[in-house]
Amino acid sequence: MNENREVGVWMNTWNEVYESARSKCHKCRCCNVCNGVACKGETPGPGGKGSGRAFMRNVELLSKVALVMDTIVSNEEVDTSTDFFQTTVSMPVYAAPISGILQNYGAELDDLTYTEQLVKGCLDVNTLAFSGDGMHDHMFLEPLKVLQKYGSKGIATIKPWVGEHMKWRIEAAEAANLVAIASDIDASGLTNLRKSKTPVEFKSVEALKELRAMTSKPLILKGILSVEGAKKALEAGADAIIVSNHGGRVLDDSISAYDVLRDIKAAVQDKMKILVDGGIRSGADVFKCLALGADGVLIGRPISHAVIGGGSEGVRIYLEKIQLELKEAMAMCGCKKISDITIDKVKVLF
Amino acid sequence: MNENREVGVWMNTWNEVYESARSKCHKCRCCNVCNGVACKGETPGPGGKGSGRAFMRNVELLSKVALVMDTIVSNEEVDTSTDFFQTTVSMPVYAAPISGILQNYGAELDDLTYTEQLVKGCLDVNTLAFSGDGMHDHMFLEPLKVLQKYGSKGIATIKPWVGEHMKWRIEAAEAANLVAIASDIDASGLTNLRKSKTPVEFKSVEALKELRAMTSKPLILKGILSVEGAKKALEAGADAIIVSNHGGRVLDDSISAYDVLRDIKAAVQDKMKILVDGGIRSGADVFKCLALGADGVLIGRPISHAVIGGGSEGVRIYLEKIQLELKEAMAMCGCKKISDITIDKVKVLF
Amino acid sequence: MNENREVGVWMNTWNEVYESARSKCHKCRCCNVCNGVACKGETPGPGGKGSGRAFMRNVELLSKVALVMDTIVSNEEVDTSTDFFQTTVSMPVYAAPISGILQNYGAELDDLTYTEQLVKGCLDVNTLAFSGDGMHDHMFLEPLKVLQKYGSKGIATIKPWVGEHMKWRIEAAEAANLVAIASDIDASGLTNLRKSKTPVEFKSVEALKELRAMTSKPLILKGILSVEGAKKALEAGADAIIVSNHGGRVLDDSISAYDVLRDIKAAVQDKMKILVDGGIRSGADVFKCLALGADGVLIGRPISHAVIGGGSEGVRIYLEKIQLELKEAMAMCGCKKISDITIDKVKVLF
Amino acid sequence: MNENREVGVWMNTWNEVYESARSKCHKCRCCNVCNGVACKGETPGPGGKGSGRAFMRNVELLSKVALVMDTIVSNEEVDTSTDFFQTTVSMPVYAAPISGILQNYGAELDDLTYTEQLVKGCLDVNTLAFSGDGMHDHMFLEPLKVLQKYGSKGIATIKPWVGEHMKWRIEAAEAANLVAIASDIDASGLTNLRKSKTPVEFKSVEALKELRAMTSKPLILKGILSVEGAKKALEAGADAIIVSNHGGRVLDDSISAYDVLRDIKAAVQDKMKILVDGGIRSGADVFKCLALGADGVLIGRPISHAVIGGGSEGVRIYLEKIQLELKEAMAMCGCKKISDITIDKVKVLF
Repeated sequence: MNENREVGVWMNTWNEVYESARSKCHKCRCCNVCNGVACKGETPGPGGKGSGRAFMRNVELLSKVALVMDTIVSNEEVDTSTDFFQTTVSMPVYAAPISGILQNYGAELDDLTYTEQLVKGCLDVNTLAFSGDGMHDHMFLEPLKVLQKYGSKGIATIKPWVGEHMKWRIEAAEAANLVAIASDIDASGLTNLRKSKTPVEFKSVEALKELRAMTSKPLILKGILSVEGAKKALEAGADAIIVSNHGGRVLDDSISAYDVLRDIKAAVQDKMKILVDGGIRSGADVFKCLALGADGVLIGRPISHAVIGGGSEGVRIYLEKIQLELKEAMAMCGCKKISDITIDKVKVLF
Repeated sequence: MNENREVGVWMNTWNEVYESARSKCHKCRCCNVCNGVACKGETPGPGGKGSGRAFMRNVELLSKVALVMDTIVSNEEVDTSTDFFQTTVSMPVYAAPISGILQNYGAELDDLTYTEQLVKGCLDVNTLAFSGDGMHDHMFLEPLKVLQKYGSKGIATIKPWVGEHMKWRIEAAEAANLVAIASDIDASGLTNLRKSKTPVEFKSVEALKELRAMTSKPLILKGILSVEGAKKALEAGADAIIVSNHGGRVLDDSISAYDVLRDIKAAVQDKMKILVDGGIRSGADVFKCLALGADGVLIGRPISHAVIGGGSEGVRIYLEKIQLELKEAMAMCGCKKISDITIDKVKVLF
Repeated sequence: MNENREVGVWMNTWNEVYESARSKCHKCRCCNVCNGVACKGETPGPGGKGSGRAFMRNVELLSKVALVMDTIVSNEEVDTSTDFFQTTVSMPVYAAPISGILQNYGAELDDLTYTEQLVKGCLDVNTLAFSGDGMHDHMFLEPLKVLQKYGSKGIATIKPWVGEHMKWRIEAAEAANLVAIASDIDASGLTNLRKSKTPVEFKSVEALKELRAMTSKPLILKGILSVEGAKKALEAGADAIIVSNHGGRVLDDSISAYDVLRDIKAAVQDKMKILVDGGIRSGADVFKCLALGADGVLIGRPISHAVIGGGSEGVRIYLEKIQLELKEAMAMCGCKKISDITIDKVKVLF
Repeated sequence: MNENREVGVWMNTWNEVYESARSKCHKCRCCNVCNGVACKGETPGPGGKGSGRAFMRNVELLSKVALVMDTIVSNEEVDTSTDFFQTTVSMPVYAAPISGILQNYGAELDDLTYTEQLVKGCLDVNTLAFSGDGMHDHMFLEPLKVLQKYGSKGIATIKPWVGEHMKWRIEAAEAANLVAIASDIDASGLTNLRKSKTPVEFKSVEALKELRAMTSKPLILKGILSVEGAKKALEAGADAIIVSNHGGRVLDDSISAYDVLRDIKAAVQDKMKILVDGGIRSGADVFKCLALGADGVLIGRPISHAVIGGGSEGVRIYLEKIQLELKEAMAMCGCKKISDITIDKVKVLF
């Protein structure tokens, strides 16, 4: 449907962007509610691994956090801005690293074009994107160049490769003067990646300390899902963790980040930043994550839909929608600034 | 269906009234069970905002309160009457303020005619209605005139407008000598209303104290949904609060009043009246609310259906049905008067 | 379907009996699982009142009690027999009082014939039936005559009528030398019965003590659903109570007997017998009730199906099935006799 | 479908094996997810007994255990091997004793051929099978011969027969020098088996001690489902128990092994081996069982599907799939060896 839309005419509302994405995705159904039910087990594809429960659980748990309204407050306006490692962003919402748009969504869009539209769209609303990585050098280098083209305002993500493969990537990211460098260390548990031509390896606390020493930039570890893991990340010197089950795509039947977010916050407190992702679909969802203890969130699939459906303009439209929703949730719950969003502003129903 | 029914021939049973409403509503489906599922996200329309979960949660939580039967009691008859700020009412059940019948239900009924039929129907069974408000002066003044025409036996509701817009409305309500004056302060969190020609604003405790000082009438604050909010309302000098998520129409994913009603009762005790609304569909539901700590309840959508389907006669039929159901619930649970309906008369299954 | 089956040819297995019942019931659907879902709100009819939740809750809660298997026991056979007020019965399973077969099931069977087949069927497997009552004298007297014809081996049930209407019924039951006399006192809360030509009334503890004094027979109070009610029944001198929500037919949204059975057992202990009913469909269900604290159970709807589908022979077939299932549940859980069925033999999942 | 596949051409992937099984089973539907829903009550057939809830509960509870990911670990490879009574196996996953393939699955496969393919397939991946038993001597002896043919590397299962019927079987198993001898003592509660030509009987602790004394081989008691039962098995001298509700086939509404596994582990600790079965469908499920306290698991229905669909090759393919999944679950959760799989590696959501 809508196959005869003119390419390049950006849609001016989110529904049009999403409808456009739906017409371009031949693997992802672009369901009304993106919750992992229809696509369960579809990897490659947009689904959660195996039973798909880990993806579905992300959405399900967020739906079981409810907002506590209170409008008896002073009459100043709401401000959603925050700081991300000395960069001011319009809201604590970042684009997750995603690659393989063709394989996973069935959309004719190469990863380089994808990354450029993504980064531009994020910067248009004054927030940041994470770029991706892959087993061939160019899969890391080309997204990096995009980030550099846009003022180095973004975060490179590096898989936990063995030895030199990891080292030169960190050095390249360091040289690019990015906002921060991330590593999605949960990839180390994937059998096929441990056996690939460029293999990943498990990173112990000692190994992570060595990575830590390779860069002066903030180091972010992605794929933490336990209090123990968070403590080890802290011991290794990480500046931030991303509590994440990787959208349910690396371990069937894993818990959701929301199962463990409050415990991690209690254990880690303010000693490092806590980011989270998984199933976030609205500004109210962002609000919930912050109330549960996160300093910020990453959004994955819907931002991919935004890029596919409307390029950087689609990303802008999507993120403005999220910001408006976040702002209204804050207004209704009596929060004037991001740090006002505390655990007593929600009721956790699980 | 039933399009050729003669207008003005009031139905004499609730099912006929509801069937008539169904034939006249072009946006609301008038489902067999009015629970927010079919209409989720339909605003304008009768639905809950966004995911619709806040509306659905109202109905769901009430369905998870069960009555504890006990008929070993003395043989006196059940009395449902109570006092509402020195007015005796036949039962603690009031009509919620609703406007925009055409936009939300798709029924050809202007708000003034709606209000008149509503007020008349409530008085016919000896209870009271809340009237509505809007950004144009006449949207407040005309319903007020209706209340005056019927002996001032009702409550005017005023949005939390800025400065003078609020002041003259309170003065007009005061002059009309109504039973009480209410303000649905939760409207202050709505971005579009804060930016409208006549804007609303957040009301702090100090600002509410100023409103309090403007009238000698009982002041009711509507849209409280937290213990903290209830305490602030008390501090501001309110005579009553309405614990409410506004039928799920102002904040997606908000908690339900029933999530917090018992805690608010514990915090506030008898220092001010506690009213509640959301998803109440039967006399048993009224019983549940009172058992959970409310002094009275407001009913919204079903009473709109009653007005649309049968005018004041429809309201009378609906409220008599509610009263009969409340009376039987009280009889089966060994309650002779409203104050006998205590927390031990229900089992809360959530 | 099966309309041309010959009347009077009793079926020899339960499925045939049930199929026969299905062909004869024009109001009850005789669902594969009799759980109150399809017939919700159908009164008259076989359903639960209003939302039907009270009926459905009975079945649902029983489904949430699970049996704890243990077969490491001595090698003696299982015995399901027990004592009911000095009468030995083959199992603690009794037929509930039911009337209005035509109105509620749509089966062409008058209540007198129904009662005779019921009583005969119960005695054939050596257990007992409760007979019913109604606002006309013969509705009590004729079932009573049936019980007398079968050796007075049964229990008469009397509604909580005012004054003389109650008195002569108790005297007649006393004269008939029955095993026990019951009163379903929950009927006192029904508005239409309180206003009928022969009205019921609420019975206080004092009023129940008067009834108690009218007969030397064991007195059973039916329709207790709270600890408080159980204590009052004990104070009034009752020999047994039937914890029951009346199959969900007297109070919409009432709790189920299973919500309160353990608490009542803890409060009452062995000071009076505790019977229970609601949603019991198998021998495993009987086992569950006994484990939760009951001394015996009543079965309603399925026994009506048995009578309608196969007369006394249908009742025999049904009750033999129940007994076999009870026996096997006991065998698998290491219980040799009824008193071995204790709370540790089940896990309660609600 | 696929009826014209050539028999004997073994499939080389699990999906092909399962599709082949589906084409050969005329009673079992070989559902995409084998969870007991479609076949509930179908015994004979593959279903759970009666309501089928005991089967369904197995699958349901496993789905409510979630894995706690942690990849910050040393970089050594994962090892799934373990010891089973002095035999090293590639993983703690064994084939459950199953007989009656024709009656239960509707597949044209005699039990002897079934057993041979099963045993061979298990040994091909270096693990072990349990053989079955029946009321005729050959139903025990022929499977026993198969085990002997394959180096006696397996476990014979004996029903709790009375006297001599049990004794000669144990002696024959002893003489065959098997890895261990098991008895599914839960069969003693089945009425029809207690009344069969060769009857079973309940085995008390004393009776089990006598069995214990008859053999020098490890003795495994199958069908334990309570802490009390586990303690009695320990007292009787058992070397291992299999916590099991027999796939929901012996007692409707029984609890699942997973309801009681942790409590049994706490009570028994390391004094005897704890095996478990019921609803295990993936390597992640195996991981969950081990985390809950089991030393190993048995898999039933899916291995039957494997034999039916692909003979020993099907079993090999299935078990290699399970091993790969187990290995990846261990990798993602930071477990290098089986004993690393502890309770903190999962979150139990029931």
